[in-house]
Amino acid sequence: MTSVADRLKELGIDLPPVPQPLAIYRPAVRTRDLVYVSGQLPTVDGKILTPGRLGVDVTVEQAKAAARVAAINALAAANTLLGSLEGCRVIRTVGMVACAPEFVDHPAVVNGASELLRDVFGEEHGIGVRLAYGIASLPLNSPVEVELLLEVD
Amino acid sequence: MTSVADRLKELGIDLPPVPQPLAIYRPAVRTRDLVYVSGQLPTVDGKILTPGRLGVDVTVEQAKAAARVAAINALAAANTLLGSLEGCRVIRTVGMVACAPEFVDHPAVVNGASELLRDVFGEEHGIGVRLAYGIASLPLNSPVEVELLLEVD
Amino acid sequence: MTSVADRLKELGIDLPPVPQPLAIYRPAVRTRDLVYVSGQLPTVDGKILTPGRLGVDVTVEQAKAAARVAAINALAAANTLLGSLEGCRVIRTVGMVACAPEFVDHPAVVNGASELLRDVFGEEHGIGVRLAYGIASLPLNSPVEVELLLEVD
Repeated sequence: MTSVADRLKELGIDLPPVPQPLAIYRPAVRTRDLVYVSGQLPTVDGKILTPGRLGVDVTVEQAKAAARVAAINALAAANTLLGSLEGCRVIRTVGMVACAPEFVDHPAVVNGASELLRDVFGEEHGIGVRLAYGIASLPLNSPVEVELLLEVD
Repeated sequence: MTSVADRLKELGIDLPPVPQPLAIYRPAVRTRDLVYVSGQLPTVDGKILTPGRLGVDVTVEQAKAAARVAAINALAAANTLLGSLEGCRVIRTVGMVACAPEFVDHPAVVNGASELLRDVFGEEHGIGVRLAYGIASLPLNSPVEVELLLEVD
Repeated sequence: MTSVADRLKELGIDLPPVPQPLAIYRPAVRTRDLVYVSGQLPTVDGKILTPGRLGVDVTVEQAKAAARVAAINALAAANTLLGSLEGCRVIRTVGMVACAPEFVDHPAVVNGASELLRDVFGEEHGIGVRLAYGIASLPLNSPVEVELLLEVD
């Protein structure tokens, strides 16, 4: 069986340092065999990738790439807490998309996170339940925020 | 004690086939005795019932009926995973309402889901915690999305 | 070790009666060692503190104070269910902010809830994961809604 570490290597992903919390919260918390991860923004070196809103000034492709980065940040948070991502299973992902009211293509955006999680954990453990919806705005004018709930072996 | 199957029959509800995922996710996932269900839309035969937004082009009564359909779809997803809904308890429901900023009658809309769940599982097991709030937009221009968390006996 | 009751006394907080549910839900529900609390509004004696939206007619300071009140209401709901808050740990907080699309200072608003929870439960048990985001509108024209998930000892 391919390990998560191997898959990350194949994908060329080096988990970044956990993004500095913007306020009073922890990046990730474990209770029994569940790991809750804070809502993650698509930050690279502390800056939001393509700030703005869908249907206004950010494209679906840009936001999809941003959702992938936010998911990588979520994995970094879980990895820092657990020491490793081996044996984890994706239970639930929430993808919030900052957008104009006319925008309705949220699933395509949130797939940026879902494809990444599937590629990292595999079909069996990398696909959980999901919510995708469009909201008014996000911290730092981010186009997406991704929340993750993992089960630990 | 009345079974869930009996109550569904009394209510005239035939659980529909699980709505086809719009993207990379599972309709429902179990971890220990919790069943997470993906955010469900009010689809009937693959089409959104009364697309649009509250305070714009969808009425409270229409959206309440849509929330009921979304909740039925959520039960269908859980039922397909579990094989039966007997012994389930409703822990948490989230009702997201696509609306204009002036719309503030979210509880009346989300009651469409809550009344259905109460009627299916009974007062003791069918009423959990709830969130109701108004968002910018939803996939497929849906007026509501319903998320469900169940506990299994 | 300081008890939660002592900290509440030091902070001058008398947990209010649980806000009357606006609809069909319970204020709080326990499953195993997790306590889910319904989305709470900043109600005092049944009235919303500073109704309105951020970036329109409510300031960050007002909304931060409102988030604190919503968090107190969430604690009241958990306390009524459990009989006591001793031994609880904050797992997850969601802070939803009703706002104009241009508003991006959600973390400062939601800190009103997070600071309160940290002060009540202490640094070790009072800081969990968090989501903060901006939505179109909330029930009763509330500027904030706070959801809380606690772990019980």
